[in-house]
Amino acid sequence: MASKNSYRIASIPGDGIGPEVVSATIQVVEKLAKTLGTFDINFEHIPWGTEYYKKTGRYVSEDYLDSIRQYDAILFGAVGSPDVPDHISLWGLLLALRGPLQLYANVRPVRTFPGTKCPLTTATNGIDWMLVRENSEGEYAGQGGRSHVGQQWEAATEVAVFTRVGIERIMRFAFETARARPRKLLTVVTKSNSMRNGMVLWDEVAASVARDFPDVKWDKMLVDAMTVRMVAKPQSIDTVVGTNLQMDILSDLAAALAGSIGVAPSSNLDPTRKSPSIFEPVHGSAFDIIGKGVANPVATFWSAAEMLVWIGEKDAAAQLMGCVERVCAAGILTPDLGGSSDTQGVVDAVCLEVGK
Amino acid sequence: MASKNSYRIASIPGDGIGPEVVSATIQVVEKLAKTLGTFDINFEHIPWGTEYYKKTGRYVSEDYLDSIRQYDAILFGAVGSPDVPDHISLWGLLLALRGPLQLYANVRPVRTFPGTKCPLTTATNGIDWMLVRENSEGEYAGQGGRSHVGQQWEAATEVAVFTRVGIERIMRFAFETARARPRKLLTVVTKSNSMRNGMVLWDEVAASVARDFPDVKWDKMLVDAMTVRMVAKPQSIDTVVGTNLQMDILSDLAAALAGSIGVAPSSNLDPTRKSPSIFEPVHGSAFDIIGKGVANPVATFWSAAEMLVWIGEKDAAAQLMGCVERVCAAGILTPDLGGSSDTQGVVDAVCLEVGK
Ligand SMILES: CC(C)[C@H](C(=O)O)[C@@H](O)C(=O)O
Ligand SMILES: CC(C)[C@H](C(=O)O)[C@@H](O)C(=O)O
Repeated sequence: MASKNSYRIASIPGDGIGPEVVSATIQVVEKLAKTLGTFDINFEHIPWGTEYYKKTGRYVSEDYLDSIRQYDAILFGAVGSPDVPDHISLWGLLLALRGPLQLYANVRPVRTFPGTKCPLTTATNGIDWMLVRENSEGEYAGQGGRSHVGQQWEAATEVAVFTRVGIERIMRFAFETARARPRKLLTVVTKSNSMRNGMVLWDEVAASVARDFPDVKWDKMLVDAMTVRMVAKPQSIDTVVGTNLQMDILSDLAAALAGSIGVAPSSNLDPTRKSPSIFEPVHGSAFDIIGKGVANPVATFWSAAEMLVWIGEKDAAAQLMGCVERVCAAGILTPDLGGSSDTQGVVDAVCLEVGK
Repeated sequence: MASKNSYRIASIPGDGIGPEVVSATIQVVEKLAKTLGTFDINFEHIPWGTEYYKKTGRYVSEDYLDSIRQYDAILFGAVGSPDVPDHISLWGLLLALRGPLQLYANVRPVRTFPGTKCPLTTATNGIDWMLVRENSEGEYAGQGGRSHVGQQWEAATEVAVFTRVGIERIMRFAFETARARPRKLLTVVTKSNSMRNGMVLWDEVAASVARDFPDVKWDKMLVDAMTVRMVAKPQSIDTVVGTNLQMDILSDLAAALAGSIGVAPSSNLDPTRKSPSIFEPVHGSAFDIIGKGVANPVATFWSAAEMLVWIGEKDAAAQLMGCVERVCAAGILTPDLGGSSDTQGVVDAVCLEVGK
């Protein structure tokens, strides 16, 4: 008899609707594991977030990097609170993990999901893209400063830092991702006409890595022109790679064009598997609906499915996605998607489907 | 009898389809001036661009800033050529003017134009936005560099520089622009959750300038979330202001969402009127259709209309726009808009309309 795999998952619900969607997802994944009986999965609650900050002065524990390294993966909710400046909360928690853990590949599959509708008349069959975002450097390097604060002659900088190593590894990852998809098509996004250093390095590294992937068809787009292509010729796009900020923007746009940011998942991966990877919905805290019980859990379900693939439970992931898609297709949807179900209603429906 | 105003306009057709759309526009504007008889306008050809560069090693003449300062305005075509790296050509010409001339306000009206169709099912009445882009600093400050070029440990930076003066003047301009529109609604776009210096300064300056405009309703959006709003709630948007790069991206997106980048105009303004302002289509060189005679001249017509407003010929501008709209509404369109007319066909139709 094969031995049963067992996984320890850190659950960081965080702020806003994070706790609602994470708890929804844990219910569903535990039900799935129990039903299948092929693996064990244990979620351990980690209380980091704005409440923790108000008590301790820190968003995370002092030994947070060491303590988080013992897990197989991290399921993350959201961070951000109306009473703390966003740059404090985000750098206190989420950005304190992505960079330091070297989770350099942020992967965002985007497709028109059952229950959502692509708002583009140019995309008759909906959208199906795979977005790869550099997640460890660039515009999020954290460098820069302010001089003469408050004076009329104040000057501030935001310094984007790009390294050859950083670009090369994400480029290789993106080419491999493109290669694994049926169309084998990659678009490299930069803005090397106005930014002449790191962006030109991106272009050079892209051209050099491409030589190792003769079977992948690739092209280059300027980020501004890329938005036009996403709107006007969505079918011409398959896999996309770009910088931390540029793909932050394009991935939100993509989710909206596909139908809803409420279903969009995201994986923060360390492809070398030295650190646990983080799986999180794209949507964020959503202050306006906290505690109303109507948060859409689908983005977190999908993120958990990506997590299951990553830790090695591909069949379970496929099972989960099948159930979620059937429930959504049946119209059991939260209000943001035009439905009348609450979060728990969606959870119950998915659990029922899982048990079938 | 009132004296007749006379204007000297520098025409810089530049590269790609620039010469085609600029020549089309000069024909139309000259016909307009002749028909109205209320002002004189003279276009003087300036040969800067890639051909000039190949001959002289420079994109512009040595005394270019002084020589350009004698004009009342500049009509610009495009710059960029397949055989010169974009960062050389753009910094050689267009970006050598915008910053040094302190043309700090890049204004981009975006609306669903006759003959174009908004591809969004969420915008039943089309789109009508006014985008204001900071045009003299930020990500286009030109700072940064590369170290250890070619080594595995190569590191490159792109340094965005934001000054209080730079932010304050564009913010004031944006609030004034919003105030002059019926809805008096302004959205300030930043990304101050991940970028903690210049972006936070943007937030601070916005809040302080807003106090002088109690009649303008304003809100703040993160640039990624703004793309979602543009797609999902286009009607909630009126005037928008943001950084050089962020609005570069959003303005291309906006033009595509409104219906076509082929009609989108842009004004690079010095609101202090010390330098001549530049009026240019958003579309760029469009290498693929050079010399085919099918370039869409509408974006340049519209840019010229914005120029006429700026130099003081508001009625002529309105006249011109009315004619262009009627021609487009009649279906006399270039192939990019689904029509079967060539550039000269559109020019002739507009000239005919002007003469009526
Ligand atoms: C919350 C914010 C810092 C974050 C980002 O900009 O990376 C978010 O927008 C995302 O896309 O994950
Ligand atoms: C050509 C390029 C440098 C330019 C820019 O990025 O500003 C263009 O995209 C624009 O929007 O005017």
